[in-house]
Amino acid sequence: MYTVCVRDHMMIAHSFSGAVFGPAQRMHGATYVVDVEFRRRELDADGIVVDIGLASEALRQVLAALNYRNLDEEPDFKGRNTTTEFLARTVFDRLAARVRDGRLGASARAVESLRVTLHESHVAWAAFEGSLA
Amino acid sequence: MYTVCVRDHMMIAHSFSGAVFGPAQRMHGATYVVDVEFRRRELDADGIVVDIGLASEALRQVLAALNYRNLDEEPDFKGRNTTTEFLARTVFDRLAARVRDGRLGASARAVESLRVTLHESHVAWAAFEGSLA
Amino acid sequence: MYTVCVRDHMMIAHSFSGAVFGPAQRMHGATYVVDVEFRRRELDADGIVVDIGLASEALRQVLAALNYRNLDEEPDFKGRNTTTEFLARTVFDRLAARVRDGRLGASARAVESLRVTLHESHVAWAAFEGSLA
Amino acid sequence: MYTVCVRDHMMIAHSFSGAVFGPAQRMHGATYVVDVEFRRRELDADGIVVDIGLASEALRQVLAALNYRNLDEEPDFKGRNTTTEFLARTVFDRLAARVRDGRLGASARAVESLRVTLHESHVAWAAFEGSLA
Amino acid sequence: MYTVCVRDHMMIAHSFSGAVFGPAQRMHGATYVVDVEFRRRELDADGIVVDIGLASEALRQVLAALNYRNLDEEPDFKGRNTTTEFLARTVFDRLAARVRDGRLGASARAVESLRVTLHESHVAWAAFEGSLA
Amino acid sequence: MYTVCVRDHMMIAHSFSGAVFGPAQRMHGATYVVDVEFRRRELDADGIVVDIGLASEALRQVLAALNYRNLDEEPDFKGRNTTTEFLARTVFDRLAARVRDGRLGASARAVESLRVTLHESHVAWAAFEGSLA
Repeated sequence: MYTVCVRDHMMIAHSFSGAVFGPAQRMHGATYVVDVEFRRRELDADGIVVDIGLASEALRQVLAALNYRNLDEEPDFKGRNTTTEFLARTVFDRLAARVRDGRLGASARAVESLRVTLHESHVAWAAFEGSLA
Repeated sequence: MYTVCVRDHMMIAHSFSGAVFGPAQRMHGATYVVDVEFRRRELDADGIVVDIGLASEALRQVLAALNYRNLDEEPDFKGRNTTTEFLARTVFDRLAARVRDGRLGASARAVESLRVTLHESHVAWAAFEGSLA
Repeated sequence: MYTVCVRDHMMIAHSFSGAVFGPAQRMHGATYVVDVEFRRRELDADGIVVDIGLASEALRQVLAALNYRNLDEEPDFKGRNTTTEFLARTVFDRLAARVRDGRLGASARAVESLRVTLHESHVAWAAFEGSLA
Repeated sequence: MYTVCVRDHMMIAHSFSGAVFGPAQRMHGATYVVDVEFRRRELDADGIVVDIGLASEALRQVLAALNYRNLDEEPDFKGRNTTTEFLARTVFDRLAARVRDGRLGASARAVESLRVTLHESHVAWAAFEGSLA
Repeated sequence: MYTVCVRDHMMIAHSFSGAVFGPAQRMHGATYVVDVEFRRRELDADGIVVDIGLASEALRQVLAALNYRNLDEEPDFKGRNTTTEFLARTVFDRLAARVRDGRLGASARAVESLRVTLHESHVAWAAFEGSLA
Repeated sequence: MYTVCVRDHMMIAHSFSGAVFGPAQRMHGATYVVDVEFRRRELDADGIVVDIGLASEALRQVLAALNYRNLDEEPDFKGRNTTTEFLARTVFDRLAARVRDGRLGASARAVESLRVTLHESHVAWAAFEGSLA
């Protein structure tokens, strides 16, 4: 299995609802350093998993829709805790849609699965991985 | 699949038995930077994999029982080489017990597997991963 | 010259005022991974620059007063942009006060200067360093 | 499952063929920081996955055959794009051969799979993983 | 003293002349992860050292003139060994010119010094620092 | 000012004497990831600060005399706490002697200062820097 990973980041504000979050129930924020792994069984005719330029641009676009925002005010996240693991899933879903609709190139349609990791500090991260099938 | 990872560290002394270890047969030591990944298929009602506060505290406790110690003198490790891979398994077993007995919260019982990684330097690490079933 | 450095982090929300900040004028947030370096010419009688336990605890306390907060609502920062460089200075000032009032131990009074670095992402950081004299 | 990982690096020149590569069609180069993970289900009698000294030396030898070279001139890569993912596979194949022929010790024959990761910058990496069976 | 640092990277090919370079006399290459630190005594009216957007763009432009190139063929480097330390100086000189000619904004003219660090692997880096006066 | 840095590591056991060390008074150990920076004002005729091969070998030798040892039993450290800052100074002194006696090459005698940093975990490090004059 081949994997290619690209990295970018976003900086957001949010608050959480639920006693389990302790002081994180207050309005606070995070830098998420985001890694996206693209996986497929065989390389394409150029010898690559995915066009890394298109992959990086797709990731930049997905993060731009979240970056420099207060996620508590985003209609998409109404009534949800935008935890690190939840946001990993959100980035996964939005990137998966882009792979499927061809925005990463025709060749990228052979990508079988994605893994999205959000590093929130030097001591914690969360990830979501899933199939594109 | 969702993953959440927390990091901590411990500093121990030990020596190894067996020609394969070369100079590491002498009394020496290591800093282990320890990553623990908790994995489950769906998030709980709060939108998390595990209470990260409880998870960090559980890891701290497991490491505290090893930290600042000469592992050659620990009864639990009598006659064993406390290699990085062996210690990854030890941390796994002790954390798995805590997940099972509910010390990471009732919700954490949905955690399906753990992966424990011990970074011993900038050029080497070892890990153990296994199911909690 | 000897240096000892300890690391911790905080997660805050804020917004900036001024066209130079572009989209960062919106409410957003950041994880700051914070390094504090303590410097002195000679080690104390124990062979250390500073009691690393007290230093880590002092840093934890200074960050706790900022952590999980919306800095736009903090009276101390009224009318100020809480940029990374400004916050590096804030942490410096608050830690310097603690060194001077003896909370890091009598021996720490021989510390000559501090350097505080705030890592805001994998591609940017800011620092403030100054004398304690 | 146990994993042990060792790290080394190589510095090479190459160029790519195909419009997808943009400016990377020109002669350029890369530092690849290379991680190799060795995986097996049970530890050997010494409590290890693999002799880390032999593993590091095998990796060093495999990289030495590529290091400080213009890969465009290597007969083995004639007509191929030596992309990061392609080179991850190359290192995998050459290390797998060494595991199989016993150069990492008899015990290493119980290693079930390898994962080879090439970090090409702070924002991109590629990997190949496969079974040794 | 305040510092702000931004990071980017470039991937180049080159060869060295001189027995001291051993195998690096052959055509090879490197990824340089480049950190540029901007230093000044006081923050400007916005509370910053430099417009981080303009600073990042200036660094991007300076690296673009070197990126994906065989430095042996660059007229500017005729007869010179483009070592890591030499390239750190080159990036310094080109960025310093941009600071002085106002391309980083009028406020950036108060920047007193720069430090440019090129990370060439996980085990080696070089830097050049100097005054802008 | 030019700087070149090389990295290596060592793994040692030791214990500390003094209430300030708390549990670190017990026999324990550490991995120290060691960075050595060599500094000089001008590059030599080859365009380098120091022969990086000789510098790495000198560092390897200095660390080999400490590596895989119980520092409590080393005659050189009798009655001393081998703290991270103390060991940074020790590595500095031993490398400085090698620079002065010509083992890093004649050209290295123009190196003006060294900085030795020992990373003991992901949250703490210590350093010693000094002139070679």
